[in-house]
Amino acid sequence: MNKKIGKHTVRLESKPRIISVTSVVGPKEGEGNLKDYFDIILRDDLNGKESFEKAESDMMYTAVLESIKKARLTEEQIDFLLAGDLLNQLTSSSFAARGMNIPFLGLYGACSTMTESLGVAAMIMDGGFANYVVAATSSHFAAAERQFRYPLEFGNQRPPTAQWTVTGAGAMVLGKEGNYPYITHVTIGKVKDYGINDPNNMGAAMAPAAVSTIYQHFNDTKRTPNYYDLIVTGDLGKYGKEITEKLLKEYGYNIRENYIDCGEEIFDCETQGTNAGGSGCGCSAVVYTGYIYKNMLSGKFKRVLLISTGALLSTTSSLQGESIPGIAHAVSIEYGKIGEKK
Amino acid sequence: MNKKIGKHTVRLESKPRIISVTSVVGPKEGEGNLKDYFDIILRDDLNGKESFEKAESDMMYTAVLESIKKARLTEEQIDFLLAGDLLNQLTSSSFAARGMNIPFLGLYGACSTMTESLGVAAMIMDGGFANYVVAATSSHFAAAERQFRYPLEFGNQRPPTAQWTVTGAGAMVLGKEGNYPYITHVTIGKVKDYGINDPNNMGAAMAPAAVSTIYQHFNDTKRTPNYYDLIVTGDLGKYGKEITEKLLKEYGYNIRENYIDCGEEIFDCETQGTNAGGSGCGCSAVVYTGYIYKNMLSGKFKRVLLISTGALLSTTSSLQGESIPGIAHAVSIEYGKIGEKK
Repeated sequence: MNKKIGKHTVRLESKPRIISVTSVVGPKEGEGNLKDYFDIILRDDLNGKESFEKAESDMMYTAVLESIKKARLTEEQIDFLLAGDLLNQLTSSSFAARGMNIPFLGLYGACSTMTESLGVAAMIMDGGFANYVVAATSSHFAAAERQFRYPLEFGNQRPPTAQWTVTGAGAMVLGKEGNYPYITHVTIGKVKDYGINDPNNMGAAMAPAAVSTIYQHFNDTKRTPNYYDLIVTGDLGKYGKEITEKLLKEYGYNIRENYIDCGEEIFDCETQGTNAGGSGCGCSAVVYTGYIYKNMLSGKFKRVLLISTGALLSTTSSLQGESIPGIAHAVSIEYGKIGEKK
Repeated sequence: MNKKIGKHTVRLESKPRIISVTSVVGPKEGEGNLKDYFDIILRDDLNGKESFEKAESDMMYTAVLESIKKARLTEEQIDFLLAGDLLNQLTSSSFAARGMNIPFLGLYGACSTMTESLGVAAMIMDGGFANYVVAATSSHFAAAERQFRYPLEFGNQRPPTAQWTVTGAGAMVLGKEGNYPYITHVTIGKVKDYGINDPNNMGAAMAPAAVSTIYQHFNDTKRTPNYYDLIVTGDLGKYGKEITEKLLKEYGYNIRENYIDCGEEIFDCETQGTNAGGSGCGCSAVVYTGYIYKNMLSGKFKRVLLISTGALLSTTSSLQGESIPGIAHAVSIEYGKIGEKK
């Protein structure tokens, strides 16, 4: 049987289960709209470490190990860890993996990395190469600000389209069996660049990639938006979300009824000063492992399409006058008795 | 049937074939020991572009498209491109992918990325998710120097243990059928850190990871070094190679007879001033797609174990006093009638 359907989507016949999840967030996220759903909320952004980068790596380490513990497994039972983050050379993930006895695959798709790692992990599971795989990502506001923009001490002003990198790490353990949310399809995105070159307007840069991947997913699976209880983009923010909704409508798919964006959900942008919303690898990671996963278990959401979205720029590429390419990968997750109709 | 054998190795029953390869290198590599094996040799390091980074991305683009053309395929027939490089946020790969109509997965394992992308690509093929996948990596001496060390204009002195980042890109197209070299096993490595903190001695930092992965491969597959015609590490250089040989001997595996390191092979270190040898994502990529693949086709090498090796540091991690973790992934490649004894 061919597991590839349509142009860019694969079907996972074995339906890999997400058997446990852990979300770790910073204090600001812990005061946001979704505060009741996170597993661990740090008291301060440094979390007792010497640097923001080390604090980020420690969040990732904690999220991965806690999710393994929750699944009642040991590190030795995990076949692969797939992880990535925004720090140059993925040091948050690599240094977290250094402390674990688990074969490690680093991935980078900017803020799309959560569905990239989850999607590849699901293929590795379905391909018969593993019994248990962990997929994880992290980001940290202060580490990202000083790497990509300015040190916090500089106190730069942020335009309304700017987003706020989420301080957080999310990890998911995939297994083969049990009554848990399961992955049915993965749609891998292409790099899309419509010439946006303002690093303070990532939503606009990433929206075409989100549109391309969501359109492709519907086209490949012959599904329509109402198949899902929830269509969730990673971190397009307020403006990117509007563009995505509008463009998809032009392509014939009206997603307005059941569409949310993790970046818009996680903060109360009005009172928390986060402008267009949250962003970062950690954004869709903690919103999925926090808010969405728990609401799948409770039965509120049965069918979710998660589309993490990434802006593939670097400071060097921006300084060299390049525009900002975007990418998005979609993972279809369902819960309920397998085979049961909605 | 379980495709996982031993602790960290997977067996690829369908034996994904490497149906075409392309190597693109810079002028210095084009004057080195392996000059006769490369497909494309650039006349200068900028290759007509405005920056070294853009030149690197262009090499990657050329390597991928040429390898697709050689396989007599079109971009649209390629299911996934898996690629990575050393530049912050993988801009070499992402910007190359921007110009292609192929779903893209970015990976980062520093200089281990060639076997990481090849290994994951092989699992995706064997899992039944694709008909054709391209795995590629690139690196560029001048882009890497200014990102990780000093701008070239600074003219810093290089200690004898320093290595020389290879300017080059290699791409491989995987397919399902035909009489080509094929992948039989992949061993995914763990992050190993023995406390080396000298970024001018990467060989020593990466050697423990190479030893761990090679040892694990032999242990998982019940093979011994003489199973292979060639055991090839990515870029340990002269000193890392010595350490690897010695440590593996202590663990009971004598690999001296058939062991080479891509970093040591690619340059004439005496006359080319490359100290301990070549390094970079592109190193094992072009040595495999150049020298080794062609010698597999000619029948000189029938069984090759390729172990790309990566040092997972960043400038930030080094400035923050961290040591240098290493990682290595092994891919077993054979050629000859499938099932035929050596």
